[in-house]
Amino acid sequence: MNNEFKDEVSSRFKQMQSEIVSALSTEEHKGHFQSDPWSRLEGGYGGGGLTRIVTAGEVFERGGVNFSEVHGELPADMSEKLIGENSAQPFYASGVSIVMHPYSPMVPTVHFNVRYLEVKDKRWFGGGTDLTPYYLFEEDAKHFHQTLKAHCDKYNPTYYSKFKKWCDEYFYLQHRNEARGVGGIFFDYLGKEDDQKVEAIFPFVAGLGKTFIDCYLPIVKRRRDEEWGEDEKQFQLMRRGRYVEFNLIYDRGTLFGLRTGGRTESILMSLPPEVKWVYDYKVNSNSREAKLFEILSRPREWL
Amino acid sequence: MNNEFKDEVSSRFKQMQSEIVSALSTEEHKGHFQSDPWSRLEGGYGGGGLTRIVTAGEVFERGGVNFSEVHGELPADMSEKLIGENSAQPFYASGVSIVMHPYSPMVPTVHFNVRYLEVKDKRWFGGGTDLTPYYLFEEDAKHFHQTLKAHCDKYNPTYYSKFKKWCDEYFYLQHRNEARGVGGIFFDYLGKEDDQKVEAIFPFVAGLGKTFIDCYLPIVKRRRDEEWGEDEKQFQLMRRGRYVEFNLIYDRGTLFGLRTGGRTESILMSLPPEVKWVYDYKVNSNSREAKLFEILSRPREWL
Repeated sequence: MNNEFKDEVSSRFKQMQSEIVSALSTEEHKGHFQSDPWSRLEGGYGGGGLTRIVTAGEVFERGGVNFSEVHGELPADMSEKLIGENSAQPFYASGVSIVMHPYSPMVPTVHFNVRYLEVKDKRWFGGGTDLTPYYLFEEDAKHFHQTLKAHCDKYNPTYYSKFKKWCDEYFYLQHRNEARGVGGIFFDYLGKEDDQKVEAIFPFVAGLGKTFIDCYLPIVKRRRDEEWGEDEKQFQLMRRGRYVEFNLIYDRGTLFGLRTGGRTESILMSLPPEVKWVYDYKVNSNSREAKLFEILSRPREWL
Repeated sequence: MNNEFKDEVSSRFKQMQSEIVSALSTEEHKGHFQSDPWSRLEGGYGGGGLTRIVTAGEVFERGGVNFSEVHGELPADMSEKLIGENSAQPFYASGVSIVMHPYSPMVPTVHFNVRYLEVKDKRWFGGGTDLTPYYLFEEDAKHFHQTLKAHCDKYNPTYYSKFKKWCDEYFYLQHRNEARGVGGIFFDYLGKEDDQKVEAIFPFVAGLGKTFIDCYLPIVKRRRDEEWGEDEKQFQLMRRGRYVEFNLIYDRGTLFGLRTGGRTESILMSLPPEVKWVYDYKVNSNSREAKLFEILSRPREWL
């Protein structure tokens, strides 16, 4: 294990968490990001973290900005998948994970993650951010993607288009034939399978926190005072069900966390506070709801 | 494929569905079990079924009694798991699946399933039923188990204790360290790995539909008029979240269905109509809620 670099990453991640909480707090005057530090050692896993969570806020019905760090022995099947060795392997993982669920159906839900992994002698970064609107404002989707592209382009001209595509593929609900939202970027195994080492990748990852703020905060500002009514709220509650389906069926981070000693409450803060499932939900054609479904049915180039 | 037996099973399953809908309807005067037949052929899978679903009833906020039949090529990884052959294999599956979500937190949620599978030249039955109360009435749990034991004992004196244990192990949320409810029975691979053929197992499975009615209906009758208030409702909404977590993270039937051409809306009718996730939920000690958590934390012998 590479203690010095690991510590540098961990310390940068903690700082990122704190910066993001401060930035989100500028739009959240009622809710307070409560601090919930945790640590544990059980079943061969050790770990700890700091969960920063807001509930029943002014803008955010529920949201979490979490830092965590876990280590232990990765089971054989997971080692096989990650580094191709079919036996238990020592691992270390640290990361920042964010999911924000606003009250207003006009403000999109957002997800952000950066993570650093060491498994045996392999090391890599993963992460990304994606936007899940309930009502679509094209300028928001464009702004989100534009801001991500600008960040990517500073480090590697191939990143944005590669990671945008990866995001569209990853945040996809096969059983619904629909995307989770309007995408963003997703990347994994950076520093492991390409020519660059993790040390060279680090600035790209470290800078993503600031970029995330620039991606999301202007959208919150713009949409927080949009009007909405009961119909829009019901649509949001139903759409939130799809978010739950994605996170529990497909999301690698969630399933990895639940299996490797992460803290359940911190991992599942990604689930929305209130959700509805409606049997065989249909939207009216030409409605704003239908427009969203149309966008989700095939990924689009926003730029 | 063994067409004659397969058809006999399929026809018995359809009859079972209809009997169960009739029985549940005796307690549901407002809601009507709407009939939604479906069929489809895509991605190498063919299938069809009849979804019987009640929404916004008098007793049941949402519930489904589904019959389905699917066939096609099972992907290599699933064939490997089921019959130990690491290549795509022809399969056929039919079954009846039920989940009933009552409005009242005093009436437990129930799940029931019987299924018949053929993969290449292997054939077997699986299934079971389990009870998920929000407020615990011990006599209900005992009645449920007693009725199941009486059915099991008619066929094999080892069944109840074996299947009861299997149920406790299967309906367990590892990440919460808690059982889904008070259990029941669960079985799989019957007729495949034991001495008996599926033909000999069939009467046990065929009779389970009637037994399910005898298990659940008296509990509905007994509890439907129990009083409850907003606090109990909120507790139910939160507990329903655990039901969602189980079905989407662990349930083999759900994940199998979503991957093998099942109809998403019919499979996910198992999800509750309304759900809440509360960060780091804690119950008051010595409360009725605390008693439920205590029961869920270690499986118990009810008889």
